[in-house]
Amino acid sequence: MMTAVFSADPATGCRPGAFGNATHLICRACGAHSPLGPFYACMECFGPLEVGYAFPTITHAEIEAGPKSIWRYAPLLPVPADISTFRSTDPGFTRLVDARQLADDIGLRQLWVKDDTGNPTHSFKDRVVAVALSAARELGLQVLACPSTGNLANAVAAAAARAGIKSVVLVPENLEKQKILASAVYDTTLIAVHGSYDDVNKLASEIAAEEEGWAFVNVNVRPYYAEGSKTLAFEIAEQLGWRLPDQVVIPVASGSQLTKIDKGFAELIKLGLVEEKPYKIYGAQATGCSPVAHAYREGWDIVQPVKPNTIAKSLAIGNPADGPYVLDVVRRTGGAIADIDDDTVVANIQRLARTEGIFAETAGGVTVGVTAKLVADGLLDPDQETVLINSGDGLKTLDAVADRVGPKTTIPPRYEAFTEFWKARG
Amino acid sequence: MMTAVFSADPATGCRPGAFGNATHLICRACGAHSPLGPFYACMECFGPLEVGYAFPTITHAEIEAGPKSIWRYAPLLPVPADISTFRSTDPGFTRLVDARQLADDIGLRQLWVKDDTGNPTHSFKDRVVAVALSAARELGLQVLACPSTGNLANAVAAAAARAGIKSVVLVPENLEKQKILASAVYDTTLIAVHGSYDDVNKLASEIAAEEEGWAFVNVNVRPYYAEGSKTLAFEIAEQLGWRLPDQVVIPVASGSQLTKIDKGFAELIKLGLVEEKPYKIYGAQATGCSPVAHAYREGWDIVQPVKPNTIAKSLAIGNPADGPYVLDVVRRTGGAIADIDDDTVVANIQRLARTEGIFAETAGGVTVGVTAKLVADGLLDPDQETVLINSGDGLKTLDAVADRVGPKTTIPPRYEAFTEFWKARG
Repeated sequence: MMTAVFSADPATGCRPGAFGNATHLICRACGAHSPLGPFYACMECFGPLEVGYAFPTITHAEIEAGPKSIWRYAPLLPVPADISTFRSTDPGFTRLVDARQLADDIGLRQLWVKDDTGNPTHSFKDRVVAVALSAARELGLQVLACPSTGNLANAVAAAAARAGIKSVVLVPENLEKQKILASAVYDTTLIAVHGSYDDVNKLASEIAAEEEGWAFVNVNVRPYYAEGSKTLAFEIAEQLGWRLPDQVVIPVASGSQLTKIDKGFAELIKLGLVEEKPYKIYGAQATGCSPVAHAYREGWDIVQPVKPNTIAKSLAIGNPADGPYVLDVVRRTGGAIADIDDDTVVANIQRLARTEGIFAETAGGVTVGVTAKLVADGLLDPDQETVLINSGDGLKTLDAVADRVGPKTTIPPRYEAFTEFWKARG
Repeated sequence: MMTAVFSADPATGCRPGAFGNATHLICRACGAHSPLGPFYACMECFGPLEVGYAFPTITHAEIEAGPKSIWRYAPLLPVPADISTFRSTDPGFTRLVDARQLADDIGLRQLWVKDDTGNPTHSFKDRVVAVALSAARELGLQVLACPSTGNLANAVAAAAARAGIKSVVLVPENLEKQKILASAVYDTTLIAVHGSYDDVNKLASEIAAEEEGWAFVNVNVRPYYAEGSKTLAFEIAEQLGWRLPDQVVIPVASGSQLTKIDKGFAELIKLGLVEEKPYKIYGAQATGCSPVAHAYREGWDIVQPVKPNTIAKSLAIGNPADGPYVLDVVRRTGGAIADIDDDTVVANIQRLARTEGIFAETAGGVTVGVTAKLVADGLLDPDQETVLINSGDGLKTLDAVADRVGPKTTIPPRYEAFTEFWKARG
């Protein structure tokens, strides 16, 4: 029933403007250009690709007149100008919380928490999946898919349901029942795989290579997908009144989010949407999976893979694709990368909840705890304005706090029993 | 350390403007006026009190220039004009989702889902608690408290943590561990009580009557608390471009949310912020706790209490305080109240997830399922523009879907195993 009323762009085979102001893909290793398309590895050197643009003039007023979602930044993303007319989960526009009590607790002058638990499936993954979904649609791919252990699976299944297209989510068989339910409820084709997450990943890459018409969001449409993380940078700047913070602390799994926040800041400067100023980018990892922090400390340019062993499962990527680029960004901006152990992760989930009323998943505990550690170690300036990213929701990793918090007492339903307890605690 | 720099209002003992444009409390039974204060029952007849106002002229532009939270409607709430300078969870401003696929599935021309899962603790309770917190502060009360079985406990504990004040949450001892964790993480004083929810409620009322300085949000500051639900009405109207929908379907627990959405619409009309037009208000209950639906069908003016037995625990109030007022509103506007059984509730959680990518708690399943039933029964006009309220998040009631959804298959990590499954399912 779809009648094309346009001449396809000869380079991509897509309708004109399918990718907005994006014009090509660039190899991050050798700099070679590729046309826009379902490509993710450089044809010259097999390096990873990212999206390049020819931006027109863009004004604050144009952005502010846009929708209350990431689509207000459509001119800065590889999406068509009419993106908000398509059915997506319309993520973004989440709170930037003035975290004064947490700042006092850590010893910072001014701290903001960018709280991405407000997204439709309660993690930052809704941002990247929404952009990947647009690319899949414009490229004529019919199945939205991913290998995942949690947040990404939720986001893909929800976005595909909303868009009315098929989705396939591959997960390790032994995944927690909670995470299975919170994906399966969207009626996705959830496939459990005997094996580790690495096995699942490998299988996904094989399917992506063999099957026609599939968009594995974090594999064959990854260059578009990754651009979604720039919207964190755009929102932070807009919410600060169109200016950049001094320091940003970002959790590192594949490292994509960190490098794209840096790219987002750079684009805002280039477009004159914020004043140019120095900013420092910091990375946060859990000690049980800290290959990038390790490489940073050792002064290496490459990242040595590790076998993850941490409760921060959403950050447990032992061989992070963007690891070397994270090292580049952090060193270029004068930041640092640090890690904390699992006990400290849990203590910092509690710290954020107690001081700001925000319940983060384990990744948020990592980011808060690393921020405190960086201050204690003199690597983060307590007098500079700092933003930290809370990328996901505590309701998805309840087990992390199960042994730490609970009722202060259990009493019979009588007023005297209550007063006895209340007086005793002083 | 607090130094009063103002003369207290002689009627309330509070600073001038502590309650914004609110001027008094009105008995909903006999109409008698009381001064603003920590009162919740009429001194003449013991009837429930609600907040009365003397509104100035308020414009769309003033509201639209306000914060991106419920505080943009501060002039319409019993809160001070400087409310957004205080630490709260700043709830509201949640998505109004154009639910075309769900509309098609149910057979409606135009359906919107007001999706309150985007609130800080992922339910509409953040709205009412934020207003209650303001009242508690202005009245000089030092402890924020509630009896609860889930969403309210999460919202109170988070809001108190953010505000830096004490909180006490009373819950039945046998509450699901998930709900206990998601409150206890905020370091609230969580007290487990041997007994049913009714026992807990009774104990809370005793404490509220005996202890000085406590704000039980849903007991002694209830008139202020309840006003928070009006912001659902304000947001719906603003998001529709400052106009009212034809029909709204609202879950009914105590009934407060339904009556306050009606009050919110009436205030917008009175202030000229929307054009006056007829609208119909519908109520949704689970059959296992449907005293208001039963009273509606029987033509009664009062509600006969029941003993709840439903998976929709957030709606399981057997003796709903606002029951008679719900009947008034529904009959006055030409709506209806219906109920569906627990199996249908779960099927409709899945229906909303499958069609719109929104994962609702059991209450959302009730509201979607009742909407479909009202259409099927000819009580809701399929050609009229309809809004339904999704009041809470599926992550908090995962057990409801645990037996219904899961992996479609389990395979070894080999491409051939995948293709075999994929081809077989056609």
